[in-house]
Amino acid sequence: MLRNEVFACFAFYSTLLILKMYTLAVVTGQVRLRKKAFANPEDAVRHGGIQYYRDDPYVERCLRAHRNDMENIYPFLFLGTIYSMIGPSRAVARGHFLVFFLARVMHTVAYLFALRAPMRSLSYIIGQLPCISMAIQIIIAVAAYA
Amino acid sequence: MLRNEVFACFAFYSTLLILKMYTLAVVTGQVRLRKKAFANPEDAVRHGGIQYYRDDPYVERCLRAHRNDMENIYPFLFLGTIYSMIGPSRAVARGHFLVFFLARVMHTVAYLFALRAPMRSLSYIIGQLPCISMAIQIIIAVAAYA
Amino acid sequence: MLRNEVFACFAFYSTLLILKMYTLAVVTGQVRLRKKAFANPEDAVRHGGIQYYRDDPYVERCLRAHRNDMENIYPFLFLGTIYSMIGPSRAVARGHFLVFFLARVMHTVAYLFALRAPMRSLSYIIGQLPCISMAIQIIIAVAAYA
Repeated sequence: MLRNEVFACFAFYSTLLILKMYTLAVVTGQVRLRKKAFANPEDAVRHGGIQYYRDDPYVERCLRAHRNDMENIYPFLFLGTIYSMIGPSRAVARGHFLVFFLARVMHTVAYLFALRAPMRSLSYIIGQLPCISMAIQIIIAVAAYA
Repeated sequence: MLRNEVFACFAFYSTLLILKMYTLAVVTGQVRLRKKAFANPEDAVRHGGIQYYRDDPYVERCLRAHRNDMENIYPFLFLGTIYSMIGPSRAVARGHFLVFFLARVMHTVAYLFALRAPMRSLSYIIGQLPCISMAIQIIIAVAAYA
Repeated sequence: MLRNEVFACFAFYSTLLILKMYTLAVVTGQVRLRKKAFANPEDAVRHGGIQYYRDDPYVERCLRAHRNDMENIYPFLFLGTIYSMIGPSRAVARGHFLVFFLARVMHTVAYLFALRAPMRSLSYIIGQLPCISMAIQIIIAVAAYA
């Protein structure tokens, strides 16, 4: 399958996005340590005392950014795989992957730096466009087998 | 792989379910706008003022429905892919996919309209049956390679 | 693809991890029933009254464990699939999958039994090592197609 150049291109941007998500998890952990706000009593006890078992608005922001990634990047991993199999032109496919990749990086930046609305929503919408496009093309390609 | 008819059938229902999840995200956004309940201060400020940076029970219901989809539809995307490779009969495989698809649509309807219990739990359980069945068949097919 | 022994081995451990996640969902449901703490009014009404529409610290612990699985096991399902295609040695690949599998089982145990910190964080970090390794190897293998 990796001899399929479209799929190889997709695998590249997808893996980068997963690394981006891993980075967000590390950022969340660092914010918890810096703000002293832990989700579990056992973590709070290890880092100074049970009083640090508490919420923090910026930790919650990180968690929302991560959750939004799970809502959008995971479906992309599936759609991009199937889309790579239906024989799209390499340039068009790369355009789909690149737009999604850049939009999701922008989404994370907009979230973490609390950029003025609607920067974040705009990144989300732009990222959805290639996903909807791929979904429709897949539906058309396989509808006969439903 | 799309020449595998079972996989093409699976791709069809899976893509529909992803579109269902995208729709749920749009519904959540619309509910936030209508109820004026935003998860981020920057969104609240754009839509009338910081006082709308607040929770709402129906927004939280949408978020729970979406999260339950992530807990159940994403594993289906993986299991269905592998299951399609172990050579099931086309009719039986289609039955698995269709039951899961209908159960998950029902689950979302039961969640959003707060249908009387146990409608939602029942949809969840019915949706799990084909998933457990696929998981067991996969384990049996590949156990020799563990 | 299942004739690829590395992929078959990967499918085995991945499916077990999905079954582990399903088990966690069942545990969460049982804790809700035992603690009488329901996320939805309609569930509370069915199980004794609207006063049981409430949060519970142990239910929230289960939800955090499940969410952490979604943050980490789902990316593994993708990375392991692509990694299986780039022709790793069978023994090395099996090592990657086995370390991840054991680390994630340990993570769930550490979470549910609230083991002393940093048991849970350590399980998380050990589980990330094979994922980062696979991600880097994929990036190197497909970078020419970006």
